[in-house]
Amino acid sequence: MTSSRFDSGVYAHRLRAAAAAAAEAGLSGLVITPGYDLRYLVGSRADTFERLTALVIPAVGEPTVVVPRMELASLKESAIVELALPVLDWVDGDDPYQLVASALAGDGAATVRFAVTDSMPALHLLPLAATLGTVPVLATDVLRTLRMIKDAAEIDALRNAGSAIDRVHARVPEFLVPGRTEAEVAADINDAIIAEGHTEAAFIIVGSGPHGADPHHGFSDRELQAGDIVVIDIGGPYEPGYNSDSTRTYSLGEPSPEVAHQYSVLQRAQQVAVDAVRPGVTAQQVDAAARDVLAEAGLAEFFVHRTGHGIGLSVHEEPYIVAGNDLPLTAGMAFSVEPGIYFPGQWGARIEDIVIVTEDGAESVNQRPHDLTVVSLPD
Amino acid sequence: MTSSRFDSGVYAHRLRAAAAAAAEAGLSGLVITPGYDLRYLVGSRADTFERLTALVIPAVGEPTVVVPRMELASLKESAIVELALPVLDWVDGDDPYQLVASALAGDGAATVRFAVTDSMPALHLLPLAATLGTVPVLATDVLRTLRMIKDAAEIDALRNAGSAIDRVHARVPEFLVPGRTEAEVAADINDAIIAEGHTEAAFIIVGSGPHGADPHHGFSDRELQAGDIVVIDIGGPYEPGYNSDSTRTYSLGEPSPEVAHQYSVLQRAQQVAVDAVRPGVTAQQVDAAARDVLAEAGLAEFFVHRTGHGIGLSVHEEPYIVAGNDLPLTAGMAFSVEPGIYFPGQWGARIEDIVIVTEDGAESVNQRPHDLTVVSLPD
Repeated sequence: MTSSRFDSGVYAHRLRAAAAAAAEAGLSGLVITPGYDLRYLVGSRADTFERLTALVIPAVGEPTVVVPRMELASLKESAIVELALPVLDWVDGDDPYQLVASALAGDGAATVRFAVTDSMPALHLLPLAATLGTVPVLATDVLRTLRMIKDAAEIDALRNAGSAIDRVHARVPEFLVPGRTEAEVAADINDAIIAEGHTEAAFIIVGSGPHGADPHHGFSDRELQAGDIVVIDIGGPYEPGYNSDSTRTYSLGEPSPEVAHQYSVLQRAQQVAVDAVRPGVTAQQVDAAARDVLAEAGLAEFFVHRTGHGIGLSVHEEPYIVAGNDLPLTAGMAFSVEPGIYFPGQWGARIEDIVIVTEDGAESVNQRPHDLTVVSLPD
Repeated sequence: MTSSRFDSGVYAHRLRAAAAAAAEAGLSGLVITPGYDLRYLVGSRADTFERLTALVIPAVGEPTVVVPRMELASLKESAIVELALPVLDWVDGDDPYQLVASALAGDGAATVRFAVTDSMPALHLLPLAATLGTVPVLATDVLRTLRMIKDAAEIDALRNAGSAIDRVHARVPEFLVPGRTEAEVAADINDAIIAEGHTEAAFIIVGSGPHGADPHHGFSDRELQAGDIVVIDIGGPYEPGYNSDSTRTYSLGEPSPEVAHQYSVLQRAQQVAVDAVRPGVTAQQVDAAARDVLAEAGLAEFFVHRTGHGIGLSVHEEPYIVAGNDLPLTAGMAFSVEPGIYFPGQWGARIEDIVIVTEDGAESVNQRPHDLTVVSLPD
């Protein structure tokens, strides 16, 4: 195993499973352009746009890579070379969509039904559909199960990422000093995220006071004030690329009794939702578990987003823990459990752990306390 | 004008022009998801993926924005609020594609022909096509002319970016010391790119010795050696978001007569190509101008890429200066002129300026000397 991907055998297994899933779905094959699916299937971090790079996985036959000749070097870090996958390179002036067509269907095939990765841009999707004479479907439906259920190496990777972000949260109180701006705090957190071993900070939310009431706030020039409640939601990729994502809420000085009470309800909601996680329970039941606790306390209207999202190579992926998702949980799924309460113009709070479904419950990869962390004010 | 976008009036004009172009193309309208087209049309840097955000520009009627309710705040920095565009917000569980359909065609319209931005991911394109019952075309064909011909404010922005990267190149020789790695040099360049006013470094190529022969090399742990020829290709966005992109080639110590000769041919090829630029000349004629000079010197086979690419909000956009592109140049177009020569396993060189087509020729936004810059070796 290199630091940036798993052993080639892992990818060989995934490619076979993907082809089998395509066959089972009655598809001729899958066409995967750069993005998380490509990284999942062959460990490639290629990030091309205007010139087509595509992994073609026919339901029957060998996976083939279509790549611009001048970007051949981008394959090196992936498992493509070690697995000796056939490579069809092309130069400006060639028609790469014809290459995909031949890799997908072979010569002389009549009609094909194919699926494309969900990030494939219109720039490539539309000419590909025209070349193959048919509109594709989303490969997500074929790859969902594969990508949702993490193997042992992936679970280890998520645990490592979780421990790293826990170490960052352990350092957050020292950054939270009245008079400092959210942006200054974010810069410290960014440094800590890198120092604790992440490749980069994928997102940093420092939501102080009223900004905490906006779940998608980033950070701003607002100065922290004594008495602020501060939402810190942070994470990023950790080699070989699996993400951390954890939220804790901090209080600059002792919180008011009302805030303390409302936070305690949120804390219970988060715990009840985690306790609800086990194989066979549906995603929406986990969402409802958190929501019901808040509703009983009259706080339902202040919880304005879903309870969680899957996580892995991407920060947001399936399964989504949301009303309407009747997907039964399975051992190996990994997702956030992150209820929040948001009082516009006033304050907000959120608690977020990443959990992995086990044979009989859930394992959290985050171990920091769930309490509202009171940061002592300077004298 | 704020630092991150132009005055709202600029966007109002662009929206009207886009609607007119859609009407002229016989389309019902355009559907623009986050990306450069969205930034061009309304100054929005929204960067959403899984939840649909879309600007809908019907050929007739008012542009409308479809946005997840929890991401409404992302509109603030754009011109959407100042222009008072109608906003249709949605929450998880709603069908945002129906909202797009109604904004595009109104209620009860029969069939629609619509175009989508080239970065729209399959995740949104396929359900949108299903909802509207028709496969879209690429909006690039409609927006090409608008986006290719820069207005006065955009040209100023490109000049500012060009001056900034010139200041970085002026500092490059001090970074190039034998024994330092390409990665160390890249780190210094990264700092200089920021220090000179860019928002970030979009790309940094430090191609030393044999690495210079790979046009798409980034940087590595290779240590610079006396005698190396080093290709430095750098750039990034400069507020309000227009990119710099400039390549110069450096020699650690005096080059050999052969290298000096071959470089002089390249230098002439670049100049002849720039001299060929004026309204009415085609993109491929500019490419051929550079290629012919190299061919006459027997170096044609070592120039393995196109001569240039358009630039603006994105680093690579139309017009592409490449064989087969018979697009006539027009005043206001901006693109790179960057021939290179690459000797695998040995060395490479490239010279790149961004030029803007004027009424009777070309203006380069880069002013650094084109000579092979000889860096003195330490005693």
